[in-house]
Amino acid sequence: MSGDTQSPDFGHADSLITVDIGAIVENWRYLDSLSGPRTETASVVKANAYGLGADKVAPALAGAGCRTFFVMSLDEAVALRRVLTETGYKERRIFALGGCHVGQEAAFAESRIMPVINSLDQLRRWRDAGSMTNGWSAAALHLDTGMTRLGLDPKETSWLLRRVEAGDTPLAGIDMQLVMSHLSAGEDLAGDASDRQLASFARLCAALPNLPASLANSGGTLRGGDFHMALNRPGIALYGLHPAGLDTAGDQSDQAASLHPAVTWQARILQRRTAAAGDRVGYNGTHQLQRESHIFTLGVGYADGYPRSLGNQATVTIAGMPAPVIGRVSMDSITVDVTGLDQARLANASHAEILGAGYALARMAGDAGTIGYEILTQLGRRPTRRYVNC
Amino acid sequence: MSGDTQSPDFGHADSLITVDIGAIVENWRYLDSLSGPRTETASVVKANAYGLGADKVAPALAGAGCRTFFVMSLDEAVALRRVLTETGYKERRIFALGGCHVGQEAAFAESRIMPVINSLDQLRRWRDAGSMTNGWSAAALHLDTGMTRLGLDPKETSWLLRRVEAGDTPLAGIDMQLVMSHLSAGEDLAGDASDRQLASFARLCAALPNLPASLANSGGTLRGGDFHMALNRPGIALYGLHPAGLDTAGDQSDQAASLHPAVTWQARILQRRTAAAGDRVGYNGTHQLQRESHIFTLGVGYADGYPRSLGNQATVTIAGMPAPVIGRVSMDSITVDVTGLDQARLANASHAEILGAGYALARMAGDAGTIGYEILTQLGRRPTRRYVNC
Repeated sequence: MSGDTQSPDFGHADSLITVDIGAIVENWRYLDSLSGPRTETASVVKANAYGLGADKVAPALAGAGCRTFFVMSLDEAVALRRVLTETGYKERRIFALGGCHVGQEAAFAESRIMPVINSLDQLRRWRDAGSMTNGWSAAALHLDTGMTRLGLDPKETSWLLRRVEAGDTPLAGIDMQLVMSHLSAGEDLAGDASDRQLASFARLCAALPNLPASLANSGGTLRGGDFHMALNRPGIALYGLHPAGLDTAGDQSDQAASLHPAVTWQARILQRRTAAAGDRVGYNGTHQLQRESHIFTLGVGYADGYPRSLGNQATVTIAGMPAPVIGRVSMDSITVDVTGLDQARLANASHAEILGAGYALARMAGDAGTIGYEILTQLGRRPTRRYVNC
Repeated sequence: MSGDTQSPDFGHADSLITVDIGAIVENWRYLDSLSGPRTETASVVKANAYGLGADKVAPALAGAGCRTFFVMSLDEAVALRRVLTETGYKERRIFALGGCHVGQEAAFAESRIMPVINSLDQLRRWRDAGSMTNGWSAAALHLDTGMTRLGLDPKETSWLLRRVEAGDTPLAGIDMQLVMSHLSAGEDLAGDASDRQLASFARLCAALPNLPASLANSGGTLRGGDFHMALNRPGIALYGLHPAGLDTAGDQSDQAASLHPAVTWQARILQRRTAAAGDRVGYNGTHQLQRESHIFTLGVGYADGYPRSLGNQATVTIAGMPAPVIGRVSMDSITVDVTGLDQARLANASHAEILGAGYALARMAGDAGTIGYEILTQLGRRPTRRYVNC
């Protein structure tokens, strides 16, 4: 038996999320090992390190050798700068993917944040920020190649390249650290979207020489080859999830096995009950019992980030034994059917594992009809959090 | 035009959630007005007041006259006791719906929290807590009548009633403040589940005389009649959402109109772009443009609690004009199609309203395939929060 029989310390809460910082560091090392010495491996720690705690994750990755971090907003960037400075990594680079918005120029400079420039308007404003930024002009340039979301659109990119071809210097006055683009389906080996984006981005980079280039997210990092440019910037894979999720097969499956899951989630058994055949369980009685049943009520619900769509779908593990979630997910609890499971082992159990070795994130996401990214970033504040292998 | 044209203060974040405390207070007053003077109206503020901030909501409701609050866990109860004490409402009652678990007895007593007793085991432990609780023995008794989730199951309830009929006093030693049950479909006027639960609970209450009784959640409070007992305990309706969601009709629709929405959510326009007919938008290119298009990228994504299931489903409002979400919801952003909208009005817009008068919570929940409860409780930490009408 594993540590599953040990009673976790829930404190005054009803569930416990354990984040394995060592696993995240190992994942970064693995991802870094996939590329050659001319490719830097950065880390994407936006959305509070995909919900797991940027204040714990980023210093650990910096300690492992990561020199560059990506966040989304200025808020996230300022918080990360503070954390990295306090932990002795004040010179690490921080890029804000959302760009610098009107009025934010001085704050970017003050915390030495590098905006990812997403439009010609942002390019002009950053170039002309002048006295507001006290000489701080570091940035990245994002050229869209198929996401149609952020980055210069094709018309803007064409304008920029025509200026360069004409001998102008439209990037003058900016310390451009990176030119980047973003894959829309980096995990999809069957389609050709990534190959087309790679070809398109390579053409653009050739027209903007001498700028370090970056295309690879987790999918591109795992794919390798020409996707590895000057800098890879994995996100989800750091946190132990292969971007292809449940669809991994072949080489992708081997890669997924090399990534260490970073999260375990355990919930208190709030109550043990019996119910009769014919009884209905939970809101709107969506599950009807076919036999006299033993039911455990567990202290986790959608307010904790356990997706409501897992009602009548998910599995939990109690003392190493699987038990199905029956009925709807409530705000604060779920009900699981333990009928027929080994009573002696159940008797000693104080909790259930709702996410972990017995029910992995990719499977939970598949059962919930979403992706692991959403589950991680939606993990709630109410569960107790524990960080291990820091 | 409404204040929609004013630029909200996002701070360094990319979206802003405004919580209208006055609306929540008005909703409590409305719900209280539905019942007679012999029915107390309590407030359910579990899950951080359904995600909106128990530290702001509970004192406001206490100030309006609410004397009793319900939370789920000891953690929530202790935090609420602190807030109510600091704001001058230290004598308000706090019930913890999840019950008192082994080892929590002293902490319950120290913060004067009343456990909702869900099983005979919890009943015995609370009765025998003795010196651990220093004489604090207040509690509620939860008898299940059809949820099959929490509360004494029918076998346990039968045992208890047989003891009472036999002249025993199985509740002796406990200051039992309340006997309660929970409706599994209080919002459903078409089915008879609530009527059956009411009949069942009334029978149990008759066998346990002299205990104040409580059955009505929001659905029961809005339903009235015999559902109103000694205490009503609305939750979701306090926060402006009718429990029937989009399915309100007739009287329910009138009631829904009497509830004031408590949340508005606005997101920054991160970028304005053009795209060509045939271009695909967002991850995996799930939306293909049929014409040359104007697209805005907004600073809100599923990491902020904007459900990923709203991709290609939701509507936002920009300068009073509706715009559809196209493509998948990203972690940090969404893309909306503004082609053909009034360019002059778009030019002056700095933001979009993603939840509010133009796109109500019930509609968002319907489009997301979930209920408003999940959306509220999953609102993220990254957006700036503003409290108004406090």
